Amino acid sequence: MAEIPETSVLAIASHVAYGHVGNTMATFVMQSLGLEVSAINTVEYSNHTAYKQVKGRKTPADEITELYDGLKQSYLNDFDMMLSGYCPSAEVVQAVGKIARDLRFNAMTKPGSFFWVLDPVMGDEGRLYVSSDIVPAYKALLNDADLILPNQFEAELLSDTKITDVSSLTHAITLLHRIHRLTHIVITSLRLSVDNIPSRTETLSVVGSTMRSDLSPRLFRIDVPAFPCFFSGTGDMFAALTVARLREAALKAGLDHTAHWQSPDSVAPTHLPLAEATEKVLASMQSVLRNTMTARDKEIHRLEKVQSPGGVNSLNEGTGEEGVRDRQMKQHLRETKAAEVRVVRNVRDLVHPPVDEVYRAVAVEGKEADPGTGDALPDELGVVKVGGGEGATHQT
Amino acid sequence: MAEIPETSVLAIASHVAYGHVGNTMATFVMQSLGLEVSAINTVEYSNHTAYKQVKGRKTPADEITELYDGLKQSYLNDFDMMLSGYCPSAEVVQAVGKIARDLRFNAMTKPGSFFWVLDPVMGDEGRLYVSSDIVPAYKALLNDADLILPNQFEAELLSDTKITDVSSLTHAITLLHRIHRLTHIVITSLRLSVDNIPSRTETLSVVGSTMRSDLSPRLFRIDVPAFPCFFSGTGDMFAALTVARLREAALKAGLDHTAHWQSPDSVAPTHLPLAEATEKVLASMQSVLRNTMTARDKEIHRLEKVQSPGGVNSLNEGTGEEGVRDRQMKQHLRETKAAEVRVVRNVRDLVHPPVDEVYRAVAVEGKEADPGTGDALPDELGVVKVGGGEGATHQT
Repeated sequence: MAEIPETSVLAIASHVAYGHVGNTMATFVMQSLGLEVSAINTVEYSNHTAYKQVKGRKTPADEITELYDGLKQSYLNDFDMMLSGYCPSAEVVQAVGKIARDLRFNAMTKPGSFFWVLDPVMGDEGRLYVSSDIVPAYKALLNDADLILPNQFEAELLSDTKITDVSSLTHAITLLHRIHRLTHIVITSLRLSVDNIPSRTETLSVVGSTMRSDLSPRLFRIDVPAFPCFFSGTGDMFAALTVARLREAALKAGLDHTAHWQSPDSVAPTHLPLAEATEKVLASMQSVLRNTMTARDKEIHRLEKVQSPGGVNSLNEGTGEEGVRDRQMKQHLRETKAAEVRVVRNVRDLVHPPVDEVYRAVAVEGKEADPGTGDALPDELGVVKVGGGEGATHQT
Repeated sequence: MAEIPETSVLAIASHVAYGHVGNTMATFVMQSLGLEVSAINTVEYSNHTAYKQVKGRKTPADEITELYDGLKQSYLNDFDMMLSGYCPSAEVVQAVGKIARDLRFNAMTKPGSFFWVLDPVMGDEGRLYVSSDIVPAYKALLNDADLILPNQFEAELLSDTKITDVSSLTHAITLLHRIHRLTHIVITSLRLSVDNIPSRTETLSVVGSTMRSDLSPRLFRIDVPAFPCFFSGTGDMFAALTVARLREAALKAGLDHTAHWQSPDSVAPTHLPLAEATEKVLASMQSVLRNTMTARDKEIHRLEKVQSPGGVNSLNEGTGEEGVRDRQMKQHLRETKAAEVRVVRNVRDLVHPPVDEVYRAVAVEGKEADPGTGDALPDELGVVKVGGGEGATHQT
């Protein structure tokens, strides 16, 4: 194993029995990289919501607080890092914020000894899938986070800035750095299509920044090919890998006693530990997703064969409207199951980012548009398709 | 990775945020060996109970049933195996039994396609640590299990037989095979001390049996050195490794289409897949525990240094009675934390049982005592210390 220095992480996110999303994804990914993970689960569901039907229970905020109090009373809360993901209510967001502040307070005399990665899970592709009071609840926490991992839509919500091109992107990131003193940002989800014409083989861009001491951004961008398939939990895989790889890169850069692991101003965007970490994260992810895609296609092919008329599992639930709906639902369930990320069987790719998956960060020389006039300066990012923020990760 | 054939496991046990017991242990161990694990958590606690204080919640039986129903409605319950552990109430034991029967029913036309490993967690060293109505609840499930993993005390409870020597041991195992048609049994916990004189360097014995077609036992025994330290969660590590290694051994032996993976009568005790699996399990465990012991001793030594008078963390909570109690509790908490099993950092030992940890099964030629007279025949196991059943695993 590529040994990452001993790291203790508190992971607060959802738990599903079947499949790999939330903590069910993040815990295994971080453990595979050698991190000690303490998981507090914000929901206990049978499966993730892409199946379109789910049973289980949301964890009330007071139970999350109680679990943390249990850790605290036994001196088990000496975490180096925290990763927070999906919260089912604004109260849970607030409870998570209180926990983070308590951990930050404990680490006050030792700068750099606690680091919070906040994944502000709110929605995607212009659609909010949490209650609307969660948006201000997250905004109120941004000042306490070290790194946030929004997709394009979530970055827009948090910065109150519509991201349409590189200048508005730069503006949004600048605002988040400046207003919230937020050291690191990675937008996991910019989908580019040159000249606004969607192409079949699309590219996804991940854009990150670690601010300078004057709060100005240091932007880098990494492009990866998109897969023509929707995978659930890839945002959680991205976050978990980022926790491990950023820890590794920050320690290598000697930043472990520096508040927020903020690199000196002399470090160029593409040499940031955040950029280096993201490169490794994407190498692992692309390989795992490619292998998942292959396994999924094989399974779908197998299903088509057994479901063909006369096949052993042919879906003959009648021909009426109900029968058709039933057949479509079964088909959907099987395809969703086939697309579960093969993370367990591809653990090698997590531990050793494949050398044939090289994605390099490039600097983004973003200039802010004058927000007054909305004038966008020419940008070198190409036209950023509006509303295409499905995650480097949640790909259609 | 030593690839074990693709296996999907439903794991029903406890979950703790901090530390490694129950599903928090078993899920990672099985995933490390490449198994797909779906976890349903019977409790959500902050930490395990050896800390002597814990916060959190027991999962009500109906929530466990609901999670399973959620899997079932989306056709996600096509499990190859099930591992069940700690249940906080008799109702939960019954709910787990219903789930196992449903999975068994689904597999009815395909013998060997579903296998249930039942760890009947009830107590240890003569002490019950669950509600007493859990004992009959487990007894009622034995007919449906394929393999049970009791410690000595639990084997006594389930067989209504006091185990004092090899003949009563044989009697207990024979009863479990005969009355419950229980194919496989491993007693994880016989502590031997020759001539009944406890020695400092004690040996633990694990005794297993796969019944023959006439329901008679095929007993084997494996001895391992005991560690002079109590570790929590080692029973769960044993169970999780056994799931993976028995699956591997049974498939290698071509038993995957044989009901209960029952070996032909011609197979000798020491050549049973169960014996082969247990050898690998113990090799992995002994190495992980040895490394844990080393890390623990180092940590205890470090704590002693910083807590010495004048040390930075010296425990000066006053000298009154309360101060002493407070100091003792803090000491206990720190020592318990130091003894958490280092499973994440020793994943190599799980995947590749170390070649320098070789524990071989030997046949046990047990003859049953006549239960009427209690006459024990001379035994080749040595005297089995009564009440020493702390697990190959929960070691003091």
